[in-house]
Amino acid sequence: MSILIKNVLHEDTITDVLIEGNRIARIAPNLPSPEGAEVIDGTDKAVIPGFINTHTHAAMTLFRGYGDDLPLMEWLEDYIWPVEAKMTAHDVYVGARLACLEMLRSGTTCFLDMYMHPLETARAVEELGLRAHLSYTLFDQGGAERAALDRKRSYEYYEAFKAFSDRITFTLGPHAIYTVSGEQLQFCHKFAVEHNVKINLHLAETKGEVDECVRQHGLTPVRYLEKLGILSEHLIVAHVVWVDDEEMDLLAKHRVSVVHNPASNMKLCSGYTFKYEEMKKRGIRLGIGTDGCSSSNNLDMVIAMKLASLLGKAWRFSPTATKAADIYHSATIGGAEILEIPAGRIAEGMLADLSLVDLNVPELVPLNSLTSNLVYATSGSSCIDTVIIDGVIRMRDRYVPGQEEIIAEAREVARRLFGHG
Amino acid sequence: MSILIKNVLHEDTITDVLIEGNRIARIAPNLPSPEGAEVIDGTDKAVIPGFINTHTHAAMTLFRGYGDDLPLMEWLEDYIWPVEAKMTAHDVYVGARLACLEMLRSGTTCFLDMYMHPLETARAVEELGLRAHLSYTLFDQGGAERAALDRKRSYEYYEAFKAFSDRITFTLGPHAIYTVSGEQLQFCHKFAVEHNVKINLHLAETKGEVDECVRQHGLTPVRYLEKLGILSEHLIVAHVVWVDDEEMDLLAKHRVSVVHNPASNMKLCSGYTFKYEEMKKRGIRLGIGTDGCSSSNNLDMVIAMKLASLLGKAWRFSPTATKAADIYHSATIGGAEILEIPAGRIAEGMLADLSLVDLNVPELVPLNSLTSNLVYATSGSSCIDTVIIDGVIRMRDRYVPGQEEIIAEAREVARRLFGHG
Repeated sequence: MSILIKNVLHEDTITDVLIEGNRIARIAPNLPSPEGAEVIDGTDKAVIPGFINTHTHAAMTLFRGYGDDLPLMEWLEDYIWPVEAKMTAHDVYVGARLACLEMLRSGTTCFLDMYMHPLETARAVEELGLRAHLSYTLFDQGGAERAALDRKRSYEYYEAFKAFSDRITFTLGPHAIYTVSGEQLQFCHKFAVEHNVKINLHLAETKGEVDECVRQHGLTPVRYLEKLGILSEHLIVAHVVWVDDEEMDLLAKHRVSVVHNPASNMKLCSGYTFKYEEMKKRGIRLGIGTDGCSSSNNLDMVIAMKLASLLGKAWRFSPTATKAADIYHSATIGGAEILEIPAGRIAEGMLADLSLVDLNVPELVPLNSLTSNLVYATSGSSCIDTVIIDGVIRMRDRYVPGQEEIIAEAREVARRLFGHG
Repeated sequence: MSILIKNVLHEDTITDVLIEGNRIARIAPNLPSPEGAEVIDGTDKAVIPGFINTHTHAAMTLFRGYGDDLPLMEWLEDYIWPVEAKMTAHDVYVGARLACLEMLRSGTTCFLDMYMHPLETARAVEELGLRAHLSYTLFDQGGAERAALDRKRSYEYYEAFKAFSDRITFTLGPHAIYTVSGEQLQFCHKFAVEHNVKINLHLAETKGEVDECVRQHGLTPVRYLEKLGILSEHLIVAHVVWVDDEEMDLLAKHRVSVVHNPASNMKLCSGYTFKYEEMKKRGIRLGIGTDGCSSSNNLDMVIAMKLASLLGKAWRFSPTATKAADIYHSATIGGAEILEIPAGRIAEGMLADLSLVDLNVPELVPLNSLTSNLVYATSGSSCIDTVIIDGVIRMRDRYVPGQEEIIAEAREVARRLFGHG
């Protein structure tokens, strides 16, 4: 199966893009159309790499708008946890389908997830056609029974994931250093090395977490992980707001990847001083994540880029910090490097994971800079017209096949869980 | 002319909304359709008040994406000013048309503007059908000649604006306390009282402005204005990042209105600690503005609300600050109170300045809270389907008549000014 995109804007030129199988095969003007190729008119559109959302909790999309503007513990205890206790595996599937739909609509082609029932999320991803790294959440809180169960499940899920297409990859998701024991974190590291998978961990998200870590272990979070011996290129840590220079040096030295989640850091007041420039200078692989909709309310990577860039300038009073091009890099190539997939760029040989942007939406006019317009002027759901993943068209003219049913189903589950649809 | 919106979500119920002339006449279920009424199906849509953008520079929409991520003086001297020097009155008209198109697309029905050639902006507003308060920029920089010209023009424009419909109101726009003399500010105050118009002023935007004001006048900006005797209900001040408690007391006492511009405050690094809660507590009328696209890159009030709410929580580490409902209030009712127009609410007797939101966009599902979803989950341009202003349908099914021509014209002017379209 081939797809030929004709006369599309790519960087600063109008060209054609030929997709063969799941790869970008040729980029050149006036390409002949191979027999049987699907031809897409790219006039007044730009081709861009699909966004890679390196930290989210897809099924929590169902929680959107439920319990905002509340103190953290009231939000968790009175809103989030009681509903999560009622959630079934099917609800996770329905929530993940809604998440995939929203991601397609806003130009995200790949994401790194952490949630319970990862096989349900995998089913949703398989159907909607995205690429994903999906973590099972390890969450023992020091309990030996749950710890044993989590270890057992890690093996079971690792095997079960083999049933899915190679767009879908299993990763381990120890929740955080305050909910998973040091021993269990070491198990994760050993498992990751043995099976060559990633570890997805919340880290140094709040000042409280750091204080508690120092109190319990006599060390700050990154130093604690170093002592456990689990800093490695397998590790992807999300948030990482509260680290000092030496800790960033350690992350760089051990090739740990870091994901910035500006929306939830702001909304939950975890901290606004994510040290993007300091980490970039150290060569740390940096990604952008939306986090889950329970805290950040949307999965739109264009909105996440906007927040990352604006916030990064604001707190340090430097208009030259967190430049649009750097943040855009993190949301595309950075994510691909973190997940080690040949994507994130429109180039021959790369995976055909890409979007067409509708350049006729008013907020992209004039086109002094497409990168700047994307980061500062629009949202993904406003301007993304077509999405291709793994060489397959998954959205065209802003329409995803089956979207009405996905929305209806999500409303039904939400009515049961929250009393609203 | 009547418009009947059938079966639309209004607050928590499905109802009908009848518009007669330029007002909302009735809100009730099962309203009969008056003879000749235009009927709109509101199924899967919500009716919301049009957003009121209380600080922007419409024509600067042409500058979008031109010179981002630069130090302030390099940006002004090498990018903004050289292009502004080349701009013709016609360019202002073209830029303002593009701005009006973008505002319609994102659900803004009314705005407060400041720019040169305000008659050109008025022409654009008249054609696109928005409501606007338009300021001529007074900018004497201490020069007697320009000061005299600005005074003369204030009278001329005031007269010339009478030719436009009553959707369009003239206001005075002294640029800032560092570009307009104290005497000229006093002229503005006298003119405003005499003709009952508003004064639109940038104030206390940067720390540098405060320091310079103290150096020159021995007083901080608000105290300086108090000494000049120009604090009054005619005055609308934008930015106002750098004020102390006593200055906020003065603003409240004299019924001065304040506009928060989170995007440009962040991007230009003017300051991130806008004291929304402190001003709200004092009963100051608060509006939300996008500022111009040269600094904030879009005119989407939904994005501006998102930034206002997230930033307001982040810097003070308080998840209960700048609640979605408060910021939404400022972007609608707050703006209407500032401009003293009977709008900003969906209620009988109010101006028919409103939008229909498409509830089937994935990022508005589920609908645990429409206000939260609007503020945190979407952008205006992603979800606004229909816009009615002054009882006239100005956008329907996301289409504004003439939008192709407006975009083509803006690209042409941008190519001349910037070398890109």
